[in-house]
Amino acid sequence: MTIKLFDLIGADDARPFSPHCWKTMMSLAHKGLPYEREGVPFTEVPNVEDGISPIVPVIRDGSRIVADSFLIADYLEETYPDRPSLFGGEGGQAAARLVEGWSQTSLHPALGVIALLEIHDRLAPADQAYFRSSRESRMGKTLEQVTEGRAAEIAGFAARMQPLRHMLKSQLWIGGSEPLFADYIVFGALQWVRVTSTAQLLDAADPVAQWFERCLDLHDGLGRSVPAASA
Amino acid sequence: MTIKLFDLIGADDARPFSPHCWKTMMSLAHKGLPYEREGVPFTEVPNVEDGISPIVPVIRDGSRIVADSFLIADYLEETYPDRPSLFGGEGGQAAARLVEGWSQTSLHPALGVIALLEIHDRLAPADQAYFRSSRESRMGKTLEQVTEGRAAEIAGFAARMQPLRHMLKSQLWIGGSEPLFADYIVFGALQWVRVTSTAQLLDAADPVAQWFERCLDLHDGLGRSVPAASA
Repeated sequence: MTIKLFDLIGADDARPFSPHCWKTMMSLAHKGLPYEREGVPFTEVPNVEDGISPIVPVIRDGSRIVADSFLIADYLEETYPDRPSLFGGEGGQAAARLVEGWSQTSLHPALGVIALLEIHDRLAPADQAYFRSSRESRMGKTLEQVTEGRAAEIAGFAARMQPLRHMLKSQLWIGGSEPLFADYIVFGALQWVRVTSTAQLLDAADPVAQWFERCLDLHDGLGRSVPAASA
Repeated sequence: MTIKLFDLIGADDARPFSPHCWKTMMSLAHKGLPYEREGVPFTEVPNVEDGISPIVPVIRDGSRIVADSFLIADYLEETYPDRPSLFGGEGGQAAARLVEGWSQTSLHPALGVIALLEIHDRLAPADQAYFRSSRESRMGKTLEQVTEGRAAEIAGFAARMQPLRHMLKSQLWIGGSEPLFADYIVFGALQWVRVTSTAQLLDAADPVAQWFERCLDLHDGLGRSVPAASA
């Protein structure tokens, strides 16, 4: 049975941009599991599957409903053990939680500033109002005030990728010789900005940029199937 | 046969401090392999095992000589597969390289500034001269000039641990329910400063400090067997 994926969208359903939903799309493709996207704008997330989760991604696989990109990866690994592993064993599954910690605390805050207004501008009007009020209330600043830090975050972003750059001296993927869910965690963060923002974060010759290009090629070019944002 | 470990020392052989040698001591203990330390001051490293390596740790296991803490972990995992795993599978082994990248690029540079003069002061005179000239030549500054940044690095250090702090909301160890080599990578960095420096980097209530205390308890309190530096 085809898995259903509830996936965050803006005004254009064909340009999914949520970093977490991208982790799940890559996970499903990695497992070779067919899935059908149902686009959900911000203001409709509370209605997904009768309000099962305050966040997307959510998947429905037969009678099972699972929310949260990491828990979905755990579920897929347990449910489809004969398909390619997302973790490469328990040690990889555990270490992916540190990769998530790094992505959430070191990459996402910077990327969120960089793409903030561009994300807003790509939403439908009702979602723009929700996005503005929820983010401004959380941050205690207007979207425009937060965005004053954009140029500095762009300038500093390449340095934030030093851990991955160092690792790439040893191997092609966080998963080693093949990509694993840990790669998709970091891929999701960069794809979020690739799809929403015109910011240029990395030089093409940067090993991190080359790793990202390899990610875009995976699974028949799934990530590349959504063109990069243009001005 | 007992494995021989060549381990960096200062003036006091009983206070090993190298972060990389600590990774290897924890790896050997994790595998339950008896070992015998041979302390090596900085100026003697080039003579270890007829100059096999410009760095320590180096181990000799029978006729095999292996240098570099990560390669030693790889060697131990391959050679002693029936003993507790250091990686929890290939995914964990690969992801540990990103943990190493994070530790080397985000933690070590800050910790190196914090402990720089204190490390110097703990060396024997010939090693002090070598340490000063090699570090000053590499950094283009005197040890004292680099140390001008110490207070700022101490103040900012807790924030550098955010990725681990985030992960600790999910699990007790980078290895998941049990520690793995990836834990020892980060432990080595903090132990380096615990043994050499009086700097206080983390509040006792910080989940990262609590994780470090758990690390100090491992393997019959191996890490704790060397008392913290006192002023």
